[in-house]
Amino acid sequence: MSTAVSPLAPKSQPKMPAIEGVRIATAEAGIKYKNRTDLLVMAFDEGTQVAGVFTRSKCPSAPVDFCRQNLPDGKARMLVVNSGNANAFTGKKGRETTDMTAQAAAKASGCRPGDVFLASTGVIGEPLDAGRFSHLIADMTRRAEPGLWKEAGQAIMTTDTYPKYATATVRLGDADVTINGIAKGAGMVAPDMATMLSFIATDAPIAAGVLQDMLSKGVGKSFNSVTVDSDTSTSDTLLLFATGAAGRRGAPEISEPNDARLAQFRRALNRILKNLALQVVRDGEGARKQVEVTVTGAKSARSAKRIALAIANSPLVKTAVAGEDANWGRVVMAVGKAGEPADRDLLSIWFGDNRLAHNGERDPDYSEAATSAYMKRDEIVIRADIGIGRGKATVWTCDLTKEYVAINGDYRS
Amino acid sequence: MSTAVSPLAPKSQPKMPAIEGVRIATAEAGIKYKNRTDLLVMAFDEGTQVAGVFTRSKCPSAPVDFCRQNLPDGKARMLVVNSGNANAFTGKKGRETTDMTAQAAAKASGCRPGDVFLASTGVIGEPLDAGRFSHLIADMTRRAEPGLWKEAGQAIMTTDTYPKYATATVRLGDADVTINGIAKGAGMVAPDMATMLSFIATDAPIAAGVLQDMLSKGVGKSFNSVTVDSDTSTSDTLLLFATGAAGRRGAPEISEPNDARLAQFRRALNRILKNLALQVVRDGEGARKQVEVTVTGAKSARSAKRIALAIANSPLVKTAVAGEDANWGRVVMAVGKAGEPADRDLLSIWFGDNRLAHNGERDPDYSEAATSAYMKRDEIVIRADIGIGRGKATVWTCDLTKEYVAINGDYRS
Repeated sequence: MSTAVSPLAPKSQPKMPAIEGVRIATAEAGIKYKNRTDLLVMAFDEGTQVAGVFTRSKCPSAPVDFCRQNLPDGKARMLVVNSGNANAFTGKKGRETTDMTAQAAAKASGCRPGDVFLASTGVIGEPLDAGRFSHLIADMTRRAEPGLWKEAGQAIMTTDTYPKYATATVRLGDADVTINGIAKGAGMVAPDMATMLSFIATDAPIAAGVLQDMLSKGVGKSFNSVTVDSDTSTSDTLLLFATGAAGRRGAPEISEPNDARLAQFRRALNRILKNLALQVVRDGEGARKQVEVTVTGAKSARSAKRIALAIANSPLVKTAVAGEDANWGRVVMAVGKAGEPADRDLLSIWFGDNRLAHNGERDPDYSEAATSAYMKRDEIVIRADIGIGRGKATVWTCDLTKEYVAINGDYRS
Repeated sequence: MSTAVSPLAPKSQPKMPAIEGVRIATAEAGIKYKNRTDLLVMAFDEGTQVAGVFTRSKCPSAPVDFCRQNLPDGKARMLVVNSGNANAFTGKKGRETTDMTAQAAAKASGCRPGDVFLASTGVIGEPLDAGRFSHLIADMTRRAEPGLWKEAGQAIMTTDTYPKYATATVRLGDADVTINGIAKGAGMVAPDMATMLSFIATDAPIAAGVLQDMLSKGVGKSFNSVTVDSDTSTSDTLLLFATGAAGRRGAPEISEPNDARLAQFRRALNRILKNLALQVVRDGEGARKQVEVTVTGAKSARSAKRIALAIANSPLVKTAVAGEDANWGRVVMAVGKAGEPADRDLLSIWFGDNRLAHNGERDPDYSEAATSAYMKRDEIVIRADIGIGRGKATVWTCDLTKEYVAINGDYRS
């Protein structure tokens, strides 16, 4: 297994400012990893609002169940995240672990267990003993401080090759508000899955219902439009916290999703979601190339997205990209297998600006040399126009390399 | 790219008897491959009945279109198959090629083009020039002889590592009838796809409608229950021919699907379909292990099959098998992502006879040593009991190895 950083890693990491109302601590609990942090606590000021989006798996982890149960209240005071063990498919013991962790967190911050949010990532099916780390939470909460976003991003990594950060500061009314986000990837060399965790916080005073509206809409074109290997984790968790601290500096309280003053904030949040989602793809297991797949001319946007995912998840398309082979016939195959309305004789395909196929056959002006040169890039854009409607969608993935197989075949035991 | 024969190849090949009413010839047309046969002609006696099943791709190849057009008549006199070029996504030229080939075949055997069936396998999107091989068909038809089934199986290979044969002789009424089948696999190192072609012939006097009924039902538990990489070819073609020659030896003419005299024949045909389908899986690209996935206790048989395919197509499950890693957490993940009714806390999972998970958590009696030993076998059986109903399905796949990536990434140009 390679420990080298992905060649697609960002050239530099953003400087993450503090978010008023958020204090952070990390610790080495030794859950699985040695000599690195694997436990994260975020403590939020009273009044913090929260929204969340979770895996659609029918076999969700215990922390996902726990968060879903607490989310309707819309209030958060503590987030506890561990890496190294997913606490998934752990039955009754799994629920005991989430309860014990939440009780320790609630006691540490003087809140209710219902105000605690949890996430775990790592191996599936191994019992996670809360006794290994819950005793650390009180001390972590005492020593937590606002500036530790960098450390937070590191503590939640499993075998990501780089931590994932994004930040933006925008105007809300007459005040500056900041949004920080961290993520860990589907790019894991982790034992059992392609878990995506992401935590975003802002000091903007925005009600939980509005946060949920923005987050639910925002994931469609970001986290729900990326795929590494079509495998959905038991543990995917995306949480958005708003402390409201900027209210003291004059930021207006937002309680309606259609409040026009939200426009800048919403755009910035969507940029952060997309930025983090793409960082996840670019750290896909064994990834050497980012692949953007756009489908146009489909019967509907929903149909376009299904076709785009059929292309993005096709092992034959992904191995062709890995091999720098402009094998557009495999895109034809993937369009054909998607099960969505399509007409072979109206189909056109581009790799970058190179149109390879048009009206159901090879483009007569297609240049093998130009396309082969294009395939050597580390960001490949595939476009398929279905030619029957106006539906459009874009998804992102990475190539499928021998390293993916090595990472996922050689691990665990 | 390795040229070694799959370690899962049959230890020996069956001796293929002649089928009365079928004459075979092969030739080296040099369409793509050198120094090997790449063209197959089967000539059938007058009165031969035919049935077929084709890819569900929305972008089918020109020969698939051509066969679909001729199938309703139920009559066949000629089959022409080439390897090296799929004649898929070749637009108007593709149709010209099928027309020209069919005319040459019709002229050679004195039949109508409507009695000709065609299949092509190889690269997608490259025009296939019928002029390269159609002139060979007349001579091939003249010299065709009944005993060349071995040669037929070889001529249709692309980069299969072994030819695929199956045969059976059973009683129909008071006569012996024989069924022969050949296939080429999804196990191709071929340029563009995982095309499955299979051609089956019998001397039994069975009407086209009855053949179609048996074939359509038979594929459900054979060819439509195998998957190598979830990618569906533009060209999948399965044809069943019945010459009726055994009628002269006293075999009864069968014209109703529910004719009780068909029972033995139907069972033999189903065995041949399953045998050939499994040979395809065992020659999956880069395959080192056969994986049988059985799902029980699902809401319905349809739901069970969807869950079984989610497991069988999961790159994380397939790489774990390649790595001989009893990583049952990935089976939990795959059940969870299938989108079918499931209850995590009722789920049980076995690898072979080793129950790993039960009632939503790791089986307390699970033996890592026993299961690890089991994973070293070359035939792995995964079973998941969903625990909510009586739906059941079995599918077959192979593992996902670095060689799959090498085969599919390093090819074409």
